[in-house]
Amino acid sequence: MTGRLIGVGLGPGDPELVTRRAWQRVSEARVIAYPVLESGDSFARRIVAEAIAPDAREIAITVPMTVARAPAQAAYDAGAAEIAAALDAGQDVVLLCEGDPLFYGSFMYLMARLEDRFEVEVVPGVTSITACAAALRRPLAARTDTLTILPGTLPEAELEARIASADAVAVMKLGRHMPKVRRVIDRLGLTAKAGYVERATLPEGRACALSDAPDTAPYFSMILLTKGADPWLN
Amino acid sequence: MTGRLIGVGLGPGDPELVTRRAWQRVSEARVIAYPVLESGDSFARRIVAEAIAPDAREIAITVPMTVARAPAQAAYDAGAAEIAAALDAGQDVVLLCEGDPLFYGSFMYLMARLEDRFEVEVVPGVTSITACAAALRRPLAARTDTLTILPGTLPEAELEARIASADAVAVMKLGRHMPKVRRVIDRLGLTAKAGYVERATLPEGRACALSDAPDTAPYFSMILLTKGADPWLN
Ligand SMILES: C[S@@+](CC[C@H](N)C(=O)[O-])C[C@H]1O[C@@H](n2cnc3c(N)ncnc32)[C@H](O)[C@@H]1O
Ligand SMILES: C[S@@+](CC[C@H](N)C(=O)[O-])C[C@H]1O[C@@H](n2cnc3c(N)ncnc32)[C@H](O)[C@@H]1O
Repeated sequence: MTGRLIGVGLGPGDPELVTRRAWQRVSEARVIAYPVLESGDSFARRIVAEAIAPDAREIAITVPMTVARAPAQAAYDAGAAEIAAALDAGQDVVLLCEGDPLFYGSFMYLMARLEDRFEVEVVPGVTSITACAAALRRPLAARTDTLTILPGTLPEAELEARIASADAVAVMKLGRHMPKVRRVIDRLGLTAKAGYVERATLPEGRACALSDAPDTAPYFSMILLTKGADPWLN
Repeated sequence: MTGRLIGVGLGPGDPELVTRRAWQRVSEARVIAYPVLESGDSFARRIVAEAIAPDAREIAITVPMTVARAPAQAAYDAGAAEIAAALDAGQDVVLLCEGDPLFYGSFMYLMARLEDRFEVEVVPGVTSITACAAALRRPLAARTDTLTILPGTLPEAELEARIASADAVAVMKLGRHMPKVRRVIDRLGLTAKAGYVERATLPEGRACALSDAPDTAPYFSMILLTKGADPWLN
């Protein structure tokens, strides 16, 4: 009997926003895997540090944050091989994922490498999108609104076209793309309708109008924008 | 001292997908409010029935599901008045929300009526979008993908234009709009790239390729579509 790969979404950062199932899967895990930055830090692991059994085996997968894909692909190949060895030995492996596993995360690269050979379970988690809306206390979308989620890494012209044609927008992955994204929103005359959130649900988090946002944004930040004239009031 | 309005997201239906904070807010609540259908059923209440204190006061807000907005508006006005009376008396009110409170739900209509006078807390929840992706075990979006969320209630031409220009799409609120949505996806030649999910995370739930989906869909169902040629494999 081979083990099961369990991708668990841990939510946006606050341990209280972990679901009951994810907390339990992590508590019971004998083998835990997670991506780490080259600095050695794992945001996902920090969220559930308290739940991990002291004698659980931990597989840290160092993913280089480069624009070229080859280094990350090699890291996923190596991580998948290490996870496969545990699964082949009949052990379940709990893979920790910030937010939701299938929404812009590393989990899907590992899942793609393992799903043909092993059983996979996915435990959905609270995404950063709704956590940022909660921090701003602003509706994301109502009734017949459409909601478009955009990575800030897109080229300026594509960002502009997509924001222009949307009802409500979330722009993720700001970081060094912040000045470009603000320029686009300003040019469209939508700055007054936008909010900015960084590190939602963490003690050092902040949420404000986009016009009050800093010039430089960390990676864990987002802009939310709703065009409607208070559609939620009706 | 007035009380606090607490909107708690309860996730897509499985009580195990409630967050630790939401479970605690519900367990501690002395006054609980929730929307109910005219049939008397409250999906949100069922998710956390086990956590509600037997002697908690319950405020059921009957929201008519009509196309005209006036009956629903009157229901929200009456519900907000009842909640305001409890808040004015110094009691916190926990408002139960299926999924996430700020993502297409009734909470925002009540919040809009109360936020100027009372403190509001929002506890984000797992949305149906990522729960449906988990049921299909399919990535929603990766890297530079954009994700567009559309209500199936949109006119056919608008649905078609928005699906044509998106990378990945979620179509919610299917119900009687199912034939229209399928027609659009077929015309765009995208049926083979789409999955269908109904009642995700519930015992009676199902998930399959759109080509295997039934002709009629319940209200709690969704279509997910990803155009990329396995973008997540890289
Ligand atoms: C690779 S994506 C991971 C998304 C995650 N899987 C989720 O479900 O939210 C990273 C992006 O998510 C957003 N993000 C994640 N956590 C956040 C937080 N606590 N506050 C603000 N934005 C966050 C940022 O836009 C960041 O650039
Ligand atoms: C008014 S919206 C509420 C969305 C909810 N607030 C959330 O965060 O997911 C209702 C729509 O959500 C979707 N939905 C909610 N729960 C679902 C479930 N368990 N399975 C499939 N779709 C669901 C359906 O498309 C339904 O028409």
